[in-house]
Amino acid sequence: MNILQQLNDIFTPERVLTDEDSLQNYGKDWTQVYTPDPLAIVFPTSTEEVQALVKMANEEGVALVPSGGRTGLCGGAVAMNKEIVVSFDRMNKILDFNSIDRSVVCQPGVITQQLQNFAEENNLFYPVDFGSSGSSQLGGNISTNAGGIKVVRYGLTRNWVLGLKVVTGAGEVLDLNHGLVKNATGYDFRHLFIGAEGTLGFITEATMRLTNIPKNLTVFVLGVTDIPALMQVFETFQNTIELSAFEFFSEDTLSLMVNDKGYARPFDTEAPYYALIEFEVDHESKEESALQAFEACAEEGWVVDGVMSQSLQQAKDLWRLREDISETISAYTPYKNDLSVNISKVPEYLDKVEQAVNQNYSEFKVLWYGHIGDGNLHLNILKPDSMEVSEFFEQCSKVNPDIFEVTKKMNGSVSAEHGIGIIKKNYLKYSRSKEEVELMASVKKIFDPKGIINPGKIF
Amino acid sequence: MNILQQLNDIFTPERVLTDEDSLQNYGKDWTQVYTPDPLAIVFPTSTEEVQALVKMANEEGVALVPSGGRTGLCGGAVAMNKEIVVSFDRMNKILDFNSIDRSVVCQPGVITQQLQNFAEENNLFYPVDFGSSGSSQLGGNISTNAGGIKVVRYGLTRNWVLGLKVVTGAGEVLDLNHGLVKNATGYDFRHLFIGAEGTLGFITEATMRLTNIPKNLTVFVLGVTDIPALMQVFETFQNTIELSAFEFFSEDTLSLMVNDKGYARPFDTEAPYYALIEFEVDHESKEESALQAFEACAEEGWVVDGVMSQSLQQAKDLWRLREDISETISAYTPYKNDLSVNISKVPEYLDKVEQAVNQNYSEFKVLWYGHIGDGNLHLNILKPDSMEVSEFFEQCSKVNPDIFEVTKKMNGSVSAEHGIGIIKKNYLKYSRSKEEVELMASVKKIFDPKGIINPGKIF
Ligand SMILES: Cc1cc2nc3c(=O)[nH]c(=O)nc-3n(C[C@H](O)[C@H](O)[C@H](O)COP(=O)(O)OP(=O)(O)OC[C@H]3O[C@@H](n4cnc5c(N)ncnc54)[C@H](O)[C@@H]3O)c2cc1C
Ligand SMILES: Cc1cc2nc3c(=O)[nH]c(=O)nc-3n(C[C@H](O)[C@H](O)[C@H](O)COP(=O)(O)OP(=O)(O)OC[C@H]3O[C@@H](n4cnc5c(N)ncnc54)[C@H](O)[C@@H]3O)c2cc1C
Repeated sequence: MNILQQLNDIFTPERVLTDEDSLQNYGKDWTQVYTPDPLAIVFPTSTEEVQALVKMANEEGVALVPSGGRTGLCGGAVAMNKEIVVSFDRMNKILDFNSIDRSVVCQPGVITQQLQNFAEENNLFYPVDFGSSGSSQLGGNISTNAGGIKVVRYGLTRNWVLGLKVVTGAGEVLDLNHGLVKNATGYDFRHLFIGAEGTLGFITEATMRLTNIPKNLTVFVLGVTDIPALMQVFETFQNTIELSAFEFFSEDTLSLMVNDKGYARPFDTEAPYYALIEFEVDHESKEESALQAFEACAEEGWVVDGVMSQSLQQAKDLWRLREDISETISAYTPYKNDLSVNISKVPEYLDKVEQAVNQNYSEFKVLWYGHIGDGNLHLNILKPDSMEVSEFFEQCSKVNPDIFEVTKKMNGSVSAEHGIGIIKKNYLKYSRSKEEVELMASVKKIFDPKGIINPGKIF
Repeated sequence: MNILQQLNDIFTPERVLTDEDSLQNYGKDWTQVYTPDPLAIVFPTSTEEVQALVKMANEEGVALVPSGGRTGLCGGAVAMNKEIVVSFDRMNKILDFNSIDRSVVCQPGVITQQLQNFAEENNLFYPVDFGSSGSSQLGGNISTNAGGIKVVRYGLTRNWVLGLKVVTGAGEVLDLNHGLVKNATGYDFRHLFIGAEGTLGFITEATMRLTNIPKNLTVFVLGVTDIPALMQVFETFQNTIELSAFEFFSEDTLSLMVNDKGYARPFDTEAPYYALIEFEVDHESKEESALQAFEACAEEGWVVDGVMSQSLQQAKDLWRLREDISETISAYTPYKNDLSVNISKVPEYLDKVEQAVNQNYSEFKVLWYGHIGDGNLHLNILKPDSMEVSEFFEQCSKVNPDIFEVTKKMNGSVSAEHGIGIIKKNYLKYSRSKEEVELMASVKKIFDPKGIINPGKIF
């Protein structure tokens, strides 16, 4: 029986798409640089259907690509070799909630924001949040171990996964960790699937943990003189109050937001860099502490100006300056690098990367922003209007080895939170040793012996 | 060359012990039920020495047992088949500290309390804590993913490991995650080594994360009418303030502590169960919130009496009632089970386990206590004075299948935080599926192809 026929049998025909629009649409993610060429798109509604599909794929030797909200930035969900794209759009239900356990059993297609809203309706909080929360799915978040803007306080997605149901590449259904807080019974495969970019199998259910809603989140935006000062500001604030975010962006980035989006500047004074700091003000003494930290930083000359939100609306307005960057600059077809080093090494690192970039293309506009409280810097190079995309990307990628050599020397990461996918495959070696990559391939072989799940991704 | 000679070459003779006392002492852990019979005890001082040892062991086909503080409760560090015990007693230095990163690079033999103290000296906090912190080592903590009394707020050991240096069973040195907060570059093997009970290789260095010191930790002990009420109390408090601990113990346990240790009761009223709740009072409004929660619980009839610590000393005195249980009852050669289920299922679960226990040995004294805020119950059966140890353990183990059958049905864990080691090997199947156990064995084979590292542990 041919493959499409088998797909129709497993899924019923209306959940098997082969029209050109769907192939183009579901065959790519946010990277937009690869030419999609999948065989078909399928929409499972149960773990059993996924299992049947995996069995068929093993028999027929056809490749499968797990696909979530397709907001990924590394091509992890891209299908360009006649694979079957497995979209979780129709597995988007919240199945169960328990207020004592604070656990929510979700299908993998639940949108990040859907879980955030669900939590809020139940007087609780799901703390993983970032620019694409409105369309990314939990399956994708877990498979990329998504980070975002609250990692300083709440950690990465990994931290909120109590249990996973997966279908391995071999077609086995594993029920990992059963939503338990504590379970010391051998290797915790849950953590192997988290961040595996769909290369070991499909996540078909996830039990997520919630926490208390933070009270009166308050935002401080500070103008900072340079990167070493920024790190001092970070240490000062971190030692004074519990931070829920510590983000930064450069003046170039801010002026682009002001010009393109018409957002107001946080204050008139211009500074080379801005810190956006968020914390809970559950009592006015916290506000005093924050002000004291600010004054200490100002006295040291690290900070030239600052504003603290006085209302929820003002806090939101300040957040937009940081949160909307990624989407706003996508109009400029940016060449993105998502880098990290130990937090304390950020000044030296940023300096060296900037040198490498300036030496190679002084004519390009470079924007810096990111989750600096996690040592995580987003480097974005904007395409000049006059230049072809392919030419631009080729030029940009030329400097990558220089950047990654510095990254390697400083024990950093060539992909802090976006994953490896296709786009960073050649650079994996700068962050992981030959031995580690070989071990990864061996582990992949155990879970996916025929290599049918997301082949060609990561390594 | 014979093996002892090779050991002397690798380690210099004074770091190779073969006297009977040392063999007995270093060949066992806290379980005390197995007869130690190692070949020798060695004391590496560097990763290179461990690597040389592993290479030799692979060539000679001799087994190695990683050994930490030997406070483990499952026989994970036991050597009873002429293995070489690899003790990390001499790799007990703190190598580096960075106040911006809040990271501490530790050798694996650093004692848990040593790290706690080091953190405090630097105005920071290492939150993993339990009864054996004074002698357990970080290498052991990480290999068991130790939990303890502050998991409700701070999570397990896993949460505090930023990086690991390991020597695999194949003799490869891996430098995992480089102490980074964010690093999305393929499978995170760090998390595979955490909780692996030393079956994949040796941890020879660990980069641990610290956090802010909690302010004015305050303890509330409440007398609670029954287990369902206890869970209501948990939910009420959890929704009111951020808890750093939520522990419980039964009246039988308390009276043993009062009789044996001469500790004062928290209050005169007797109750079937007691909750010990800890939280940060960084402002007096927190104390008010806690009192309100208490009143709400009293009104519902869940709570019959309570006391809140008014000083650090009083908080410590209340904590002793819970923290010293494990050591105190060790005089009674307890038969231990360390169980967990979803928090919300605790009442039903405890009921069913109690039934199974009572049916089988109503004449034995049973003590319940544990980290109930994590769904984690310690079930301890005390040996009657008149009974032989072996007879007692045999009788106790007879009821295990009944307990674990209930555990399996309720998707619980047969070892919440103590690990599998030797003592729970036969029961692994109640918490992990056949497929999972097979996958574990395959993963083990990748990292330790000749099976020389801690063979016979976990599976
Ligand atoms: C504007 C914008 C801002 C962003 N900001 C951040 C940020 O701050 N932090 C951050 O970490 N990321 C950020 N991202 C990228 C981030 O990786 C994604 O937003 C998100 O985690 C991916 O989810 P998705 O559902 O879109 O996954 P997709 O792109 O659909 O897939 C991602 C990977 O997961 C796999 N996958 C998807 N579903 C499953 C499943 N059910 N089972 C197995 N594998 C599966 C895919 O095969 C692929 O490898 C941003 C992206 C955008 C566009
Ligand atoms: C009184 C008491 C109270 C306790 N309370 C708790 C509690 O509340 N929560 C909890 O989780 N546990 C508790 N435990 C048990 C707990 O597992 C241990 O206290 C601790 O984590 C083990 O550390 P250790 O150094 O003593 O390890 P060991 O017993 O020496 O070894 C434990 C395991 O780790 C392996 N190992 C040790 N070092 C290394 C290394 N460097 N590399 C690779 N593998 C290694 C060993 O092979 C073994 O499998 C308690 C124990 C006691 C005696």
